[in-house]
Amino acid sequence: MSNASTFWSPRIAALEPYVPGEQPRIANLIKLNTNENPYPPSPRVVGAIKRAAESGLERYPDPESAVLREALAEQHGLDASQVFVGNGSDEVLAHAFFAFFQQSQPLLIPDVTYSFYRVYAQLYGIACELEAVDEGLRIDAEALAARAASGCGGIVVSNPNAPTGIGLPLAQIELLLRACPNRVVLVDEAYVDFGGESALPLIGRYPNLLVVQTLSKSRSLAGLRVGFAFGQAHLVDGLQRVKNSFNSYPVDRLALAGALAAIEDEDWFERTRKDVIDTREGLLLQLEDLGFEVLPSQANFLFARHPAHDACRLAASLRKKAVLVRHFQQPRIAEYLRISVGTRDQCSALVDALADILGAQ
Amino acid sequence: MSNASTFWSPRIAALEPYVPGEQPRIANLIKLNTNENPYPPSPRVVGAIKRAAESGLERYPDPESAVLREALAEQHGLDASQVFVGNGSDEVLAHAFFAFFQQSQPLLIPDVTYSFYRVYAQLYGIACELEAVDEGLRIDAEALAARAASGCGGIVVSNPNAPTGIGLPLAQIELLLRACPNRVVLVDEAYVDFGGESALPLIGRYPNLLVVQTLSKSRSLAGLRVGFAFGQAHLVDGLQRVKNSFNSYPVDRLALAGALAAIEDEDWFERTRKDVIDTREGLLLQLEDLGFEVLPSQANFLFARHPAHDACRLAASLRKKAVLVRHFQQPRIAEYLRISVGTRDQCSALVDALADILGAQ
Repeated sequence: MSNASTFWSPRIAALEPYVPGEQPRIANLIKLNTNENPYPPSPRVVGAIKRAAESGLERYPDPESAVLREALAEQHGLDASQVFVGNGSDEVLAHAFFAFFQQSQPLLIPDVTYSFYRVYAQLYGIACELEAVDEGLRIDAEALAARAASGCGGIVVSNPNAPTGIGLPLAQIELLLRACPNRVVLVDEAYVDFGGESALPLIGRYPNLLVVQTLSKSRSLAGLRVGFAFGQAHLVDGLQRVKNSFNSYPVDRLALAGALAAIEDEDWFERTRKDVIDTREGLLLQLEDLGFEVLPSQANFLFARHPAHDACRLAASLRKKAVLVRHFQQPRIAEYLRISVGTRDQCSALVDALADILGAQ
Repeated sequence: MSNASTFWSPRIAALEPYVPGEQPRIANLIKLNTNENPYPPSPRVVGAIKRAAESGLERYPDPESAVLREALAEQHGLDASQVFVGNGSDEVLAHAFFAFFQQSQPLLIPDVTYSFYRVYAQLYGIACELEAVDEGLRIDAEALAARAASGCGGIVVSNPNAPTGIGLPLAQIELLLRACPNRVVLVDEAYVDFGGESALPLIGRYPNLLVVQTLSKSRSLAGLRVGFAFGQAHLVDGLQRVKNSFNSYPVDRLALAGALAAIEDEDWFERTRKDVIDTREGLLLQLEDLGFEVLPSQANFLFARHPAHDACRLAASLRKKAVLVRHFQQPRIAEYLRISVGTRDQCSALVDALADILGAQ
């Protein structure tokens, strides 16, 4: 990024944009750095996209994504008025921050979580208060609820949390919902399908609950950009107002068709997510055998540190061996590596590379 | 839209979202209401999308859209650092308003133009000053430049303008650029390929010029959602900072592939845009024969009024005959219909329907 320009709105110079994991344009890398699914999407998705490409691309997509919202509503026992669709869950999150968290009191988020939350807050001038996770990097729901009860602009938690992979039981989510009855509690469930407990069944009971999900992870569609929010209709209306003041048509015709096919193929979904979960558990044991301390994960990645080896240097050594993992140069987590769960072969290659590196040092 | 919710950010209740033209889920309508291209995209676009669907959808797209930006740069004799890509030009416009127009002085826009501009301004709390177009609904560039010279937060013009279709010559765009040297002049060229004069050749000389274009109209890809901004690198950097604080991956893999193929097929582009232009000129004469006053258009639509017939009622009568056109219940233009240029057959059907309606009244 260049220096500030006098043509920018004054607040632009102060932004510290999110830095996504590297998307290398190099072939044959083992890419375990951005929590993508190692399996392709359902063949039904590919077929639906090809059919959608064959006619109608000259026409705008349905601005309301009605068919997709109805299918999602049916899948989850909700009404279409309780479903919002966006261009990836990152866009959905951005709109949610705009719609709900521009409040006089600060937004509460854990100090170790998806780092984009702080970026959205900065973008929209929202004050954030970081609440410390405990020694084991677990969200302390009791402490967070106690803080919320004294007044806040809302709460955002990722469940399971990123980059730790640790999930919160639903009873703890309810603690937060009850402690913050007048502001939105946003539960980002990007990784929930790999072993977490979804808060979707609570929507009818909590007018302040907004659940965000994505097709990027468990449906193998990071390349398609489709995310959702679920909540009572008054919250979805708030998101629609922002969306319709920003971009009438955020989800293109191909994404609408692919998303619909993805949520219809339950067999593919169950098979691939089970493979990821099984591989994760095997990888966890192998990493422990190499001396790593690994946090318990309900996501499609593991968060691990080695007591005798610097994480930043390990990541660099792995890259030399054509294996990408993610390292965050951030307080409290700088000694950890975040490793996406790949195929069994990819995980074996990672373990072999790590064994080499640890043996050589 | 429901009533305001106490969970919303206070500013949400005051938003008046943009209302896009109807996207009916009814077959066999003649749809001349949202300025879509009546021709399909290049077959090369369809092929590229199908190939892109076959592998890699589980991976994130390139967050920088590097290949597409490089191709666009080469096409226009620019550097990739002077090209920005977004999820439709509506998203690009939204980011531009955020990046450049949150200034202490008001943004200047014509009082008759794309109505989304006022919505973006409202979304981001930007004060807007509406500058009157003249009696013939032409943008008065001299008056706008004189107003800008006394200080403003920037200027936005659509060229050709919507919904009038009237283009400004480049010399008048330069008047605006010179009158507003310290703030951005955004020239929205959504319709430029149907006969307008693009400001792209001025980018090297004017650090304050941002040109916005789209694949939705002249490349027949409204359903794919790809838009661009062109400007000096410091302006593109400003847009990138906003984009990377909002959504790292706004353009999906299929859209990237389709967009690249679209800009590569110059033959298809030239043929279809010539067809639209020719059909427009024929339709203009036929509408005049029916007694309409039609503004001169450099876009893929005509803006027309009938001295003896109410526009709102005409639109309703056309809808009963399965022909959709757009009517804006807005000051200064409530007596006009905006009619997208369809195929020759669609235009004939429109003319027949209008002849019936006018004859029967």
